[in-house]
Parts: sequence; C-alpha cells; structure tokens
Amino acid sequence: MSDWLQREIHLPAQRRGFHLVTGEVLEQLPELHAYRTGLLHLFIRHTSASLTINENADPDVRGDLERHFNQMVPENQPYYEHTLEGPDDMPAHIKTVLIGPSVSIPVSNGELNLGTWQGIYLCEHRDRAGSRTLVATLHGEK
Amino acid sequence: MSDWLQREIHLPAQRRGFHLVTGEVLEQLPELHAYRTGLLHLFIRHTSASLTINENADPDVRGDLERHFNQMVPENQPYYEHTLEGPDDMPAHIKTVLIGPSVSIPVSNGELNLGTWQGIYLCEHRDRAGSRTLVATLHGEK
Amino acid sequence: MSDWLQREIHLPAQRRGFHLVTGEVLEQLPELHAYRTGLLHLFIRHTSASLTINENADPDVRGDLERHFNQMVPENQPYYEHTLEGPDDMPAHIKTVLIGPSVSIPVSNGELNLGTWQGIYLCEHRDRAGSRTLVATLHGEK
Repeated sequence: MSDWLQREIHLPAQRRGFHLVTGEVLEQLPELHAYRTGLLHLFIRHTSASLTINENADPDVRGDLERHFNQMVPENQPYYEHTLEGPDDMPAHIKTVLIGPSVSIPVSNGELNLGTWQGIYLCEHRDRAGSRTLVATLHGEK
Repeated sequence: MSDWLQREIHLPAQRRGFHLVTGEVLEQLPELHAYRTGLLHLFIRHTSASLTINENADPDVRGDLERHFNQMVPENQPYYEHTLEGPDDMPAHIKTVLIGPSVSIPVSNGELNLGTWQGIYLCEHRDRAGSRTLVATLHGEK
Repeated sequence: MSDWLQREIHLPAQRRGFHLVTGEVLEQLPELHAYRTGLLHLFIRHTSASLTINENADPDVRGDLERHFNQMVPENQPYYEHTLEGPDDMPAHIKTVLIGPSVSIPVSNGELNLGTWQGIYLCEHRDRAGSRTLVATLHGEK
C-alpha cells in the first residue's frame, strides 16, 4: 500500500554553523518504521539556512565547513547592495543557494538508507536565528 | 487517490542573472490546486542554467547573487580548456553544478508549501540564452 | 499502476575528477523502460563524492570543473582541523556539500527525460577512492 505523510518539523534555534540533526528529525517521524520502500523529502521554509548531508562523526568537519564557507562567501563585500538586515544576511542567502533548501533520502525497510558516515545537517547561516521549520514529506510503500 | 502529472514548462529568454519565476511556473500548473499532499519536482533540461529557491522580496538579493557568483566563478581563468563557446560558457557550467538542475517543493492543500519569503529562481548563466525548458513532475494525493 | 523499485548500484573506483556515468546507471536499471511517468532518485552513500548533471559531450568541461573546484576548495587551508585522513579529505567533504549527494530526474515514456546535452556525473573528490555505492529509487506509473 502506497502512503503519504506530511508534517512540519521544528528545529530549535542554533548558533551559526553546521549542525547534525538526524536524531531530532527521526524523533519527529516515528511512522518512518512502517515504510518498506520510499523517499523522505525534507524542505526548509527559510532563505538563510539550508540542509545537506555529510559526515556524522568528527565535529571538526562541521567546524571546517563553517570556516570554509565564510572564506568563500565573506561578509561586507563592496558589491553587496542587500545590507539592511546586517552583514551576515546576504552571505546567508548565497550560502543557502550554494547548499540548497532540501534533501531527499531513500527509505528502506523502515529506516533512512544513509551510508555509515552520513547524517543530516542543518546549516544555520545567520548570527542570531530563531527556530527553523522544515516540511517533511514521506512517501512510500508500507 | 494518488496521481501523476508531468508537463514541459517553457520560460521565455531572460538576461544573465537570477530571476523570480514562481508566477510563471504556477500559471502553467493550474491542476496543482487539486493536490492535497504531494511534491512538485522541477527539472531544467540545460547545462548552463539552474534552479533554486530564495528570497522573493528585495530584488537586490538577486543582483548580489549574480555579482557574487561572478566573483566565485570568474570568466577567462587560465585553466579553462572548454572555451570555444565564449567566455561565459564554462562559468555557466560550473555555476549550474554549484546550484543544481532541479528543485523539489512540498505541496499541501493545493498550494506550494513555501515559506513566506521563498520563491523559485531561474538562474540564467549565459549572456545570450534562448528560452529554457523545464520538466514539471507533480505527484500526490488528490 | 504505480510502482516502486529500489536497488543499490555499484560504480567501480574512479580517479579523482568528474566522470560521466549515465551509461553505467542505466545498464543497472533495465526496468526503467516499463515506467511511463515518474522520477528516478539517485543517492550516493558517501561523504566525499557527489552526484550532479552536466554536459555529456566535451570532456574538457569535466576537466575544467575539477580544476575550478580545486581552486575554490584548496587543500591545506590553515583553518582546516579535520586533517588526519589526508589533505584531500576535508576538501572532499566541502565539495560534496557544494554539489550534493543526490540527483532526481524525470522519467517519461520509459526513458530519462534529460536534455540533449545532459548526463549524470559521479564527482570523485578523493585521490584514492574505492568503488562507490548509490541507492536508486525509481517510482512512477507503468
């Protein structure tokens, strides 16, 4: 039987940086275990934070990502015209475009079919963000 | 009832830059209103233009994105070997790889479930592009 | 009739760089021809290699992508702290975040609905990687 589940997931405010949120996401999707084959789509409803998948082990990877993205997309570039919301705002939009607002993950036998070293990241690009809302869309065969 | 709709969407030629196209896309998908829960997948059939989602309000965001991507991916780099189609061509391929050829957006109660500030962008990376073709695949419960 | 197919696809070890793999992927999905309308989702179960779609013709495009990504994400940056697995490892994680771990492609009349010039790329970011595992999830109407 093919089935859809769609739900908002709220992630508490995080400091600027890359954060592992696999646990928080799974906690809010207990029905996942009933899906034999399918896909989980996670979509962030914001323009200055993004979602991706990367290493779930060494936290230095997350620190290095933050440091590198700050070099690739610096604050206070002379050509920025969208500056009213603070120096971290326009870089946050650019980083979101580079990383993207969604991830889509295979579901197999009631589990996310991630590799051993993969986890879901919330990439928070603002200095003082509030909580972030995701829309989770789970679709598959039960 | 689960249903699929798939259709080509043609976007008129745009100048190089980031363009808000949410309206043009929705206009060509009137059946969206019948879908209670689902996903809309938009795929661009080109290698030098891309799709993303970002701020739908201040047009300066789109200008700053264009200016920043031109800095991150400059023309005429000494290591470019794919140069026959003009100086804007290889940067266009790189920007497309960075941004990506598709977006996938949750559908809820007959509407795209975007955040208040989110819109769909066509990112046109060529100086003199023609019209661009998307494949829209809408799938969900009616 | 709506149907799901999910299968691991194994891609043989490749040297560092961007590689066209459309043929290898399709060879391992002969059932694709039975799907009239749908989507193919390809997900790489690794954190230092990524998937994208770009030009399938001139191999110089793939060489230029490799050279440009090496400039944008250099090895041995002073701020890298995740260095134990070699100088190519942290850049590989960053490139994977920039490019992304998955692609989703429309299926129409039993074929991938790619543009004339589009092909699927495996982006191998490690110097000495082994084979890479994808999860293919095909869903659509037969």
